[in-house]
Amino acid sequence: MKRSLFNDDHEAFRATVRAFYADHVVPEYDEWERAGAPPRHFWIAAGKLGLLGTQVPEEFGGGGQDSFLFNVVLTEESQRAGIALGGLRVHTDIAMPYFLDVANPEQQARWLPRLVTGDAVAALAMSEPVAGSDVKALTMKAVRDGDSYVVNGTKTFISNGANADLIITAVKTDPSAGRDGLSLLVIDGDSPGLSRGRKLEKLGLKAQDLSELTFEDVVVPAENLLGAEGAGFGHLTGNLAQERLSIAVNSQAAAVKALSDTVAYTKDRKAFGTTVASFQNTKFELAACATDIEAGQSLLDRALVAHEAKELTAADAAMVKLFCTELQGRVIDRCLQLHGGYGYMLEYPIAKAYADARVSRIYAGSSEVMKVIIAKSLGL
Amino acid sequence: MKRSLFNDDHEAFRATVRAFYADHVVPEYDEWERAGAPPRHFWIAAGKLGLLGTQVPEEFGGGGQDSFLFNVVLTEESQRAGIALGGLRVHTDIAMPYFLDVANPEQQARWLPRLVTGDAVAALAMSEPVAGSDVKALTMKAVRDGDSYVVNGTKTFISNGANADLIITAVKTDPSAGRDGLSLLVIDGDSPGLSRGRKLEKLGLKAQDLSELTFEDVVVPAENLLGAEGAGFGHLTGNLAQERLSIAVNSQAAAVKALSDTVAYTKDRKAFGTTVASFQNTKFELAACATDIEAGQSLLDRALVAHEAKELTAADAAMVKLFCTELQGRVIDRCLQLHGGYGYMLEYPIAKAYADARVSRIYAGSSEVMKVIIAKSLGL
Amino acid sequence: MKRSLFNDDHEAFRATVRAFYADHVVPEYDEWERAGAPPRHFWIAAGKLGLLGTQVPEEFGGGGQDSFLFNVVLTEESQRAGIALGGLRVHTDIAMPYFLDVANPEQQARWLPRLVTGDAVAALAMSEPVAGSDVKALTMKAVRDGDSYVVNGTKTFISNGANADLIITAVKTDPSAGRDGLSLLVIDGDSPGLSRGRKLEKLGLKAQDLSELTFEDVVVPAENLLGAEGAGFGHLTGNLAQERLSIAVNSQAAAVKALSDTVAYTKDRKAFGTTVASFQNTKFELAACATDIEAGQSLLDRALVAHEAKELTAADAAMVKLFCTELQGRVIDRCLQLHGGYGYMLEYPIAKAYADARVSRIYAGSSEVMKVIIAKSLGL
Amino acid sequence: MKRSLFNDDHEAFRATVRAFYADHVVPEYDEWERAGAPPRHFWIAAGKLGLLGTQVPEEFGGGGQDSFLFNVVLTEESQRAGIALGGLRVHTDIAMPYFLDVANPEQQARWLPRLVTGDAVAALAMSEPVAGSDVKALTMKAVRDGDSYVVNGTKTFISNGANADLIITAVKTDPSAGRDGLSLLVIDGDSPGLSRGRKLEKLGLKAQDLSELTFEDVVVPAENLLGAEGAGFGHLTGNLAQERLSIAVNSQAAAVKALSDTVAYTKDRKAFGTTVASFQNTKFELAACATDIEAGQSLLDRALVAHEAKELTAADAAMVKLFCTELQGRVIDRCLQLHGGYGYMLEYPIAKAYADARVSRIYAGSSEVMKVIIAKSLGL
Repeated sequence: MKRSLFNDDHEAFRATVRAFYADHVVPEYDEWERAGAPPRHFWIAAGKLGLLGTQVPEEFGGGGQDSFLFNVVLTEESQRAGIALGGLRVHTDIAMPYFLDVANPEQQARWLPRLVTGDAVAALAMSEPVAGSDVKALTMKAVRDGDSYVVNGTKTFISNGANADLIITAVKTDPSAGRDGLSLLVIDGDSPGLSRGRKLEKLGLKAQDLSELTFEDVVVPAENLLGAEGAGFGHLTGNLAQERLSIAVNSQAAAVKALSDTVAYTKDRKAFGTTVASFQNTKFELAACATDIEAGQSLLDRALVAHEAKELTAADAAMVKLFCTELQGRVIDRCLQLHGGYGYMLEYPIAKAYADARVSRIYAGSSEVMKVIIAKSLGL
Repeated sequence: MKRSLFNDDHEAFRATVRAFYADHVVPEYDEWERAGAPPRHFWIAAGKLGLLGTQVPEEFGGGGQDSFLFNVVLTEESQRAGIALGGLRVHTDIAMPYFLDVANPEQQARWLPRLVTGDAVAALAMSEPVAGSDVKALTMKAVRDGDSYVVNGTKTFISNGANADLIITAVKTDPSAGRDGLSLLVIDGDSPGLSRGRKLEKLGLKAQDLSELTFEDVVVPAENLLGAEGAGFGHLTGNLAQERLSIAVNSQAAAVKALSDTVAYTKDRKAFGTTVASFQNTKFELAACATDIEAGQSLLDRALVAHEAKELTAADAAMVKLFCTELQGRVIDRCLQLHGGYGYMLEYPIAKAYADARVSRIYAGSSEVMKVIIAKSLGL
Repeated sequence: MKRSLFNDDHEAFRATVRAFYADHVVPEYDEWERAGAPPRHFWIAAGKLGLLGTQVPEEFGGGGQDSFLFNVVLTEESQRAGIALGGLRVHTDIAMPYFLDVANPEQQARWLPRLVTGDAVAALAMSEPVAGSDVKALTMKAVRDGDSYVVNGTKTFISNGANADLIITAVKTDPSAGRDGLSLLVIDGDSPGLSRGRKLEKLGLKAQDLSELTFEDVVVPAENLLGAEGAGFGHLTGNLAQERLSIAVNSQAAAVKALSDTVAYTKDRKAFGTTVASFQNTKFELAACATDIEAGQSLLDRALVAHEAKELTAADAAMVKLFCTELQGRVIDRCLQLHGGYGYMLEYPIAKAYADARVSRIYAGSSEVMKVIIAKSLGL
Repeated sequence: MKRSLFNDDHEAFRATVRAFYADHVVPEYDEWERAGAPPRHFWIAAGKLGLLGTQVPEEFGGGGQDSFLFNVVLTEESQRAGIALGGLRVHTDIAMPYFLDVANPEQQARWLPRLVTGDAVAALAMSEPVAGSDVKALTMKAVRDGDSYVVNGTKTFISNGANADLIITAVKTDPSAGRDGLSLLVIDGDSPGLSRGRKLEKLGLKAQDLSELTFEDVVVPAENLLGAEGAGFGHLTGNLAQERLSIAVNSQAAAVKALSDTVAYTKDRKAFGTTVASFQNTKFELAACATDIEAGQSLLDRALVAHEAKELTAADAAMVKLFCTELQGRVIDRCLQLHGGYGYMLEYPIAKAYADARVSRIYAGSSEVMKVIIAKSLGL
């Protein structure tokens, strides 16, 4: 069925994005994978094209659009091109809202222009080795000292961590106050005392860096405090719905791509004297995938409409993330199977898609965490 | 998430329907089950309230609405009330379109008023014992004899078969012409030579009759031919999308009802010193069901929008039927399990819902047939 | 693969049982369904053939066999004949062990001969309306009064409840002592004050009665106390492994039967110009079922070997029940689907098998309870 | 439940193998992964310990055992040690039977001693780029020229291909004769004209090489013909049961390992103020995995008993491969999920296990091919 989400502006943007990926990212994506991260010139080029700050006010160089859907286009087109741009999503969908919604005007003037041009890459440093993503268990300390905070501790699972210039960091400014002691600091990537640990070796998403970051007596100017001291928990949870929606967009688009690749593959591939597509099992598997995908798209697009109207609840977002990431897993597993032995070879996109997909059900709140949230909304 | 499908007219209609079911159907539904069919006074009462012909032009006594959504309300509210009104759906969603779209003006004048008042109950007689629902394999013959056709053969799996007054019957008028030899006759329920076979004993749907019908030299006036001779195949397939959509509406509503009943049950029911709802497994099961349901509703509502715009394709309808009926099966199975031993007792609605649900994946084209249709639309 | 469980004695017994069912049960099974219970003459006939007490010592008229496998044969052959003999399993597999292992010599002399001949039908009354199967929450009281106990309370979900002559009843002899206050009384079916409530209307298992029993000042001679006062909990849990194994045997045999019926049906049934069996989907579905069944049989037979050696643990039995009952559900659902519309008609065995199967995952400890037990055995 | 498969000899062998892996393979396994293949000194060391030829007659230096179970131990212990030794399995389980069962005495004398010591590593070259594993579609030609064959063509997906010394190669000696034109040649790894193509980049199994091999006018002495000319198809299919059983052993052992790692992990890992193991969802997931595993082990062990007795049919082996490889996929996916974010990090064994597992459902006949075989055995 037709989607009714996008207007002409979104579609024009889509054409730009599609061309940019095809011409400037796809040809060098193998190199990104070897390097384990996107190169700086990618960020600069994306900035020049206006991809990095579509929602940033024009006064700061952004697109001035009041719509998340341009970011959706960025993600959909990346999957369509067979590339996983998780670092870009972190910059535009996950970190940017803090700068747009929480930062004060002085901070916005300082940071937004650099984030829009790609001179500054953003990251969000929340998880810690022991606490994981349990916000209440975070322990990293920031101690006020005159006009600064002194930060000590270790963060892990930080996307863009290896290269980020502006790191939104969740710290305990009052260790005795539980979640009310949590604050957000924007920490400069070149701060003395900040060391970027080894890149973590992941199952997939090879072109995206994921790092540990260690902070030893890192001095952060108090003017880098994002929002009020002690208000960090609210800010973190306030953006979770969009973060999860962003993942759902990515998962859904990955499933769409896997299906279309597999339809093409099976129609082309010969086996036992015919094409793989001619087997009833192939047809039924792909029909089931297509149906699953149509349901996922319907749910997701409805959620995007709600998000545009600022009506998406935490439980809505949890359902969408749960459904679309589980769908991604199911669909890609079935599609890989239809590739036979080639499905296991990394030169086929489906193999990478399989490895990439596995984290979707885990990060930004696992499927289990989503169920906890949804159950609560049912009154359970 | 909020649904955006219905306008104020639909909601007013919903209130009427809800009250009618609560006051006039629920109290006597047990009796319907024992009788194996709805009583005639149900049809008459529904007709009086204007439920039977919302899309029928006003000149024939109908509601004159250009919207299928009133019928959707009829179905949703029946499931909400815990009753399965399959016979009503056959009348309004499945048989009625033939009278509205295929019948000529003279036929409409003859039949529509009776169908609107409930004086005439409609049925569609397509399946045969050997052919099943394979339209190409139908064998029932109608031989032209002057101004009449003489009909011989047996139909089976006919909903409303035990009581129908106007039976749209698929017959072979030219046995040598394959699907082009198929025609539709409207056969009067009291025609000599028509015998209503035993009611078929079904797993569920106990309040709905399903019958074999045998035709021995039944004489049908030629003016009862619906559409052109030989055009029956096209007419039958032309309404399949709505028929399947109607089933999807019913399945989806059944799943919604099962979830809400089960949330209530588990919050109330004690086990091992606490409530069933307090177990994490219960929460996770119900959260998974709720998510599945939200996806199904999104898909279905999107399809209903397309159907209102006359844009729903056969493949779209197949996806919606496949997804929503499989969903119904999954959700009700999980919900029944959470009822423990009571889930197996027919006095609990979930037990009946389980028995009722099982046919959804089979009739009007099984899940396998849906996959065949969907695969074709993928170019496979 | 060949099974290696049974010796020549078991196979000779199997031949007897098969003939008995074919000649004496199958022809009148429809009548049992209408009556809602097996007739008394069934019990007498089974007793005459030596089916009811294969493990009962010869001095009491039994078979004197030290093997549970004769009972396994009883169950396997019933499913093979397309009949569900849950009441028989309650008598031989579930109630009988109490008489064999817990009853004292005087009690054995009093009761075993009648149980072997079928003059007395046994039942086990454990579940209660509020407590369900949570043994710790049982509340039915038995107050000692001289040489008797006076029993008050209500039991529910009692198989054979409508007709049982010897009812092993779990009662609280010391309400303050928790599980240590639980005792077992054998209560005569014709005791004054015992009323058999309505038969419970179930989704399936129509030939087996399931009842509520109400006890009002029922006087039970103290010599009917089974085991020591306060030792009831241990006796109840002591037999749970065999009870669950018995259900697994039944579920597994039901799955075997469904597969073989469906292989035959699909080879015979025509659709779309060929047989249903010729579709690849049919082949793959049945191959998957056959594989599942082979795994279930392997697990079950291994457990039976362990049970014969008195080595089957509670966790082993829980795994076997969990796997075989879930398998039964999966397999029968898939097999029903391959029957198309006929799968929904009760005249086809698969429809009854579907309705019968649903309770297996619930009774004698639901799948969830099985997981609790298994998790404990993993140290979780 | 206890396994009853192994005798004291097998268990003594197990102790040897366990120590060897722990001392000599685990410490250098990371290096193998970087190199993409096991080093030659591994083969020599394994040969010295007597691991490579337990079924080879003593006169050729082998163990002289008439039992496949020693090989089973090799595989089980590798998974237990967290290492994947697919190349070893190819040598001992898949290639070796050709030398034992098909080779003539002269050939055995020539090759077996080198295979036993590890001086020669074996491979089986069957699949081709276009034909895949469809034996009938193989096209590689061997043309008889005097005392030699001249071989041209390309093989792909060859495990041990990068290093193998003796390559059993399926060739068409009579291209016009279909499957009767297929023969097996043992081709020396250092034959002029044989080029080892690039190692194929796989999703997992990083320590095992998989290669393309190109043969350009490779001259093979006629005395290297294995079995009769034209009899290749029979030999290839004759060993498939053991090949698939070998994969099932590996998959089953991988699932066992994943479960035990995950039980340990979840008991240790803290989340939300408690351990992951304390959540009911964790318990239920692991209980379900344990049950699945117990069923798989029962099926597999029963098949191994049948294989020891030379009674395992092709359909039996297909069921075992289907069940155990699907089980591996299910279990490892669930176990990975319980690791949260760490499950996606390659430093955790579960992440590698996930990547390794995906090929099991594909190679040596995909799950779909298994179903074809099983369905045939059901008469479908």
